[in-house]
Amino acid sequence: MSSLTRIQVPKSCDLLAAELRKRILDGEFRDGEALPVERELVAQTGLSRSSVREALRILQTEGLVRTRPGRYGGTVANRPTAEHLADQVNVFVRGRRIGLHEIVAAREAIEPMLARYAALHRTDEDLALLRASTAAMEAAVHELPRFLEANVRWHLAVAQASHNQILQAFIQSITHLIHEATQVEEVAAAETRAMVVRAHRSVLAAIEAGDADAAQRRMQRHVMAYSQQLDPLFAQ
Amino acid sequence: MSSLTRIQVPKSCDLLAAELRKRILDGEFRDGEALPVERELVAQTGLSRSSVREALRILQTEGLVRTRPGRYGGTVANRPTAEHLADQVNVFVRGRRIGLHEIVAAREAIEPMLARYAALHRTDEDLALLRASTAAMEAAVHELPRFLEANVRWHLAVAQASHNQILQAFIQSITHLIHEATQVEEVAAAETRAMVVRAHRSVLAAIEAGDADAAQRRMQRHVMAYSQQLDPLFAQ
Repeated sequence: MSSLTRIQVPKSCDLLAAELRKRILDGEFRDGEALPVERELVAQTGLSRSSVREALRILQTEGLVRTRPGRYGGTVANRPTAEHLADQVNVFVRGRRIGLHEIVAAREAIEPMLARYAALHRTDEDLALLRASTAAMEAAVHELPRFLEANVRWHLAVAQASHNQILQAFIQSITHLIHEATQVEEVAAAETRAMVVRAHRSVLAAIEAGDADAAQRRMQRHVMAYSQQLDPLFAQ
Repeated sequence: MSSLTRIQVPKSCDLLAAELRKRILDGEFRDGEALPVERELVAQTGLSRSSVREALRILQTEGLVRTRPGRYGGTVANRPTAEHLADQVNVFVRGRRIGLHEIVAAREAIEPMLARYAALHRTDEDLALLRASTAAMEAAVHELPRFLEANVRWHLAVAQASHNQILQAFIQSITHLIHEATQVEEVAAAETRAMVVRAHRSVLAAIEAGDADAAQRRMQRHVMAYSQQLDPLFAQ
């Protein structure tokens, strides 16, 4: 007979994780709703305690369950968060040693469209948050660490105002990666900071006016200017 | 005394996973390099076998280790893949019940820039793949399932030609989500398919010519036209 292919026996924890994942994604458990306790899962599936525990660990790492401490605690279904996805993007970028150049290029693709969608979909609360973080940047223009943090908050406020959860999660990870990589004086000279504040004011004005084209164009100009500031770093 | 806050004892498997994650991301283990075996990790850390196993399961779910079967098998370090990140984006989108409208808007943000970067960075192999998948679409224009699959392959070939791994991973998940959601005759009438092929030919020509502006503009027109095709679906 012709040779047989290598047989891969599926692991019991993977099978249980797949079954529970499907049920959670199909909406059988709402956010915060308790899954059967470990003992019950063991009884229902005939698996060992350690296999059940591993299955729950897989789902927790995927952001689909969380453990609730205390008397009414246990494992409950969890709505995956943007923060969690951003962590996973972070692992991808660091694990593949992806360079700053590529991270910045990804940002140039996404942020102008976020500004566009923000101009179309922003609520009054979004505008309040954007105005507050623009003001915070202006107030911190002479204090680099506070300025850089306010800068991150401003960009995340634009993302939030876009009401596109997917792009928001993507840009959240990218923004943090860039923030970590560029905590250096050279790219944040005083004149640069003043320029950044002016650019943010003009993007904000377009978002306030609901002018999608202007918001997109101004954000694009802003992120391109930022990339050019970084060019000396890439040349090193 | 004032009341104490709830004390959360960190889990031993999380602590070990964090330590191993840091070492893998810092490059201590190259792709495919074996981690210490379970018995050794137990001896080094003083943790139970089940805690060590859970820690490895966390890293496997994150895509940072894989198990290699057979005689020289065991747990080895793994370079996270775009496919793995796409799976996690898929969990995020399904777990949050994000609608097709938002998925399509995310795509409109990313694909025109992928075409731009493809025009700037494509290699000869990228062009060969793009030409082949354009030809495959033309050949399958009367067979809907094959046409839709070739369509997905074409879009992923553009993403690959961009040489931006982050955007490529993002669009991979989005493309599969849209493909799954739109396996319906209405959005893929014969005249639409002919139009799609023409649009792909014109994007391909711009990428071949290295014309970044034209590639971006044509791809943008193409994805916007596609979204308009979907509008009747959103209205349902």
